[in-house]
Amino acid sequence: MTSTQYVVIGGVAAGMSAASRIRKHDPGASVVVLEKGAYISYSACSMPYYIANPEARLEDLIVLSADEARHKRKIDVRLGHEATRIDTAERLVHFVQHPSGREGSVRYDRLIIATGASAFVPSVEGAEGPNVYTLRSLRDGQAIREAIDTGEVRRAVILGAGYVGMEMCEALVARGVATTLISARSAPMMGYHTELVRTMMAELETHGVRFMGDQQVKTINSRGVQLTDSFVEADMVIVAKGIRPNVSLADDAGIRLGEKGAIAVDQRMETSLAGVFAAGDCAESVHRVTNRRVYVPLGTVANKHGRVAGLNAARVGTRFPGVISSAELKCFDLEIARTGMTPDEAEQEGFDPVEVHITASSAAHGYPERHPIQVAMVADRGTGRLLGAQMVGKAGVAHRINIVAAAVFNGNTIDEFAMFDLAYAPPFSPVWDPVLVAANVLQGKLRR
Amino acid sequence: MTSTQYVVIGGVAAGMSAASRIRKHDPGASVVVLEKGAYISYSACSMPYYIANPEARLEDLIVLSADEARHKRKIDVRLGHEATRIDTAERLVHFVQHPSGREGSVRYDRLIIATGASAFVPSVEGAEGPNVYTLRSLRDGQAIREAIDTGEVRRAVILGAGYVGMEMCEALVARGVATTLISARSAPMMGYHTELVRTMMAELETHGVRFMGDQQVKTINSRGVQLTDSFVEADMVIVAKGIRPNVSLADDAGIRLGEKGAIAVDQRMETSLAGVFAAGDCAESVHRVTNRRVYVPLGTVANKHGRVAGLNAARVGTRFPGVISSAELKCFDLEIARTGMTPDEAEQEGFDPVEVHITASSAAHGYPERHPIQVAMVADRGTGRLLGAQMVGKAGVAHRINIVAAAVFNGNTIDEFAMFDLAYAPPFSPVWDPVLVAANVLQGKLRR
Repeated sequence: MTSTQYVVIGGVAAGMSAASRIRKHDPGASVVVLEKGAYISYSACSMPYYIANPEARLEDLIVLSADEARHKRKIDVRLGHEATRIDTAERLVHFVQHPSGREGSVRYDRLIIATGASAFVPSVEGAEGPNVYTLRSLRDGQAIREAIDTGEVRRAVILGAGYVGMEMCEALVARGVATTLISARSAPMMGYHTELVRTMMAELETHGVRFMGDQQVKTINSRGVQLTDSFVEADMVIVAKGIRPNVSLADDAGIRLGEKGAIAVDQRMETSLAGVFAAGDCAESVHRVTNRRVYVPLGTVANKHGRVAGLNAARVGTRFPGVISSAELKCFDLEIARTGMTPDEAEQEGFDPVEVHITASSAAHGYPERHPIQVAMVADRGTGRLLGAQMVGKAGVAHRINIVAAAVFNGNTIDEFAMFDLAYAPPFSPVWDPVLVAANVLQGKLRR
Repeated sequence: MTSTQYVVIGGVAAGMSAASRIRKHDPGASVVVLEKGAYISYSACSMPYYIANPEARLEDLIVLSADEARHKRKIDVRLGHEATRIDTAERLVHFVQHPSGREGSVRYDRLIIATGASAFVPSVEGAEGPNVYTLRSLRDGQAIREAIDTGEVRRAVILGAGYVGMEMCEALVARGVATTLISARSAPMMGYHTELVRTMMAELETHGVRFMGDQQVKTINSRGVQLTDSFVEADMVIVAKGIRPNVSLADDAGIRLGEKGAIAVDQRMETSLAGVFAAGDCAESVHRVTNRRVYVPLGTVANKHGRVAGLNAARVGTRFPGVISSAELKCFDLEIARTGMTPDEAEQEGFDPVEVHITASSAAHGYPERHPIQVAMVADRGTGRLLGAQMVGKAGVAHRINIVAAAVFNGNTIDEFAMFDLAYAPPFSPVWDPVLVAANVLQGKLRR
């Protein structure tokens, strides 16, 4: 009996999840992981905290080292191996080795493509300059950290006010860097309710971050960023304007891309080519509420993709149940979180969204430490279905949003959700949890 | 057109929830609330924090004052009115007024019984002594606080190591009172996983609380508590051995009691007598997983009971969807929480429970502040259904348990739960949340 040879392209979240599942369920197989970088299985999301903390070591970000993967999990991890071409007829992946430049190839019976995504950098003059950084690979994080460690970065500009941009504000301020956050939009955190965004902007201001909205970057040079009407001086420019899936390898091999530009997959994470799976930031997902294709490149999703792709590659049939765009971040003393759809997204999908915004207390009457928690919640008028929520508060938001996530994932109506039997104690919430208060207000609004 | 007269017996959580719903949905009605005490609508659960904090005022516990209820909500609140008899033939509630002793009665078209529960005090010699306290009504809390405020309580004994007993340990230690926690069982917090209980006991010890298990109280006197083999000196004895539903009023009126000894109700919270509803700590619930009658006297449940009873009394049809025994507490620096069934409870209900216990990190690789979170999780072998979970940790437990509560409430299998799309950021959890890690380990165990 010959054993199956699995090849995984990319050894970070999705790739290593897939490889580990294959190893577990097909113990006799050969599992090869081609990783172009110097590390596998690292927590890219933790890089802002590595940058913020001069005591933190790069190794702290590594969840599983290549040596551990090789020896403990018997996965043939090959670092510095960049896949260059997939030959689907011969079932070969061609690669080039770094830094030697030596070329080679590896045969596969089953292939997992986990090539991830790349930071999007706008094509303005100076965007390739040495003072311009992105935050995507471990090497990117290392470069920012080393630059700050020199003590010569006094002023920084962050372009893009999404999750990474907001987290980097905290990291840079922690290192004593005067920070300006610049967005093409009028406010940070697109899609969040106006009242929640107001709280976020106040938090940025409290911590000395200057926010500049409605700005177009004209050029970047070594002294800073030229906007339409002003020049912002900066020793460091961090571009945090989102990412694009790495799909050329798949595209060149004739594998179908989806409507969102990432690799199209079925619920088993299999691509248009039988025996070839895709997972993580290079692959599309299905939205659980709408059943539509979406591109949600997040670490949580990548890990689940990888697990499902690996299981199916190893012939343990399972389906990816879809995403609901749950995401969150910490920004200074605020927890900011969302799950499900915004009213705009819901409307685009044909729902009739009804939204409420409430402010509730984090703790019960009579408990000394309390702070406000803002909740925006949206449901469909016709069906009463809970579609999503957003929250902001100093604490008690990051896990609480996942109660709503569980409900959206289950397709609960607002009436069902409002009667959830949630655990309660005075230090942790009022007797009606803020999410239930929001649901109750929303029930009233739906009945009108 | 004559308006409906609603009478509510009891003005705390369930009673005032019912009254408020009735007022909202039947604006022309007369709503009378008979409350035997001096306050309505207070947070009884917050009393340990009122006792712990010398700055806290009793008024801080009041969610809604009688005056506010009268003027803002047009509810006819009658304080010091103790219902003594329900005349179901004449539809009258007889009462006695305190302190005058004057008697009277009020007619009802629809009646809500929300008579609550009373602390259980074992019948040992000295249990009625002036140094023996319970913690049930606001007056109880006031009495403990006043005693401690005198500065003469140096040593206290708490009898009973459940939720209230554990919370009172923290409160007494905060006031400099040397505290001994005494239980008839070998360990505190019955039903919790051995490993979680071990962590709780270590926490008690860290904060100087002496735990004495397997103890029987023989007598109580002004100097302390006589156990079988030893005498424990104490200036104050707090009995926290659970509560019993106040059902005599209903029972005497011929209203059916349930198998758990509380008032039997249908899903609309209506008793065996048409037009008479019961809600809160005097009434039974249905368990959502087993469909069996249970007695779960908690503030969260009481509020929901009251809401459902009030809506149905006001002819807005709605059903109480059941409880899953979600509960939690803070004890010093620990959050302790559970939802759903324990393995023992599951086995009694005919399930084939499979349990796992894991310890996971509260935050991602590379985030500086991390602490362990223990999760015990149980599922049914045959169906894969998620039955319950328990958690202990320094933070991140109180809201996280409610993600599991949402899943148990929905009847999710462990496979469904393991793929929940939860929001994630490095400060708040690893990329696989501890509850998903537990689910994953449980999946593996179920497949064996």
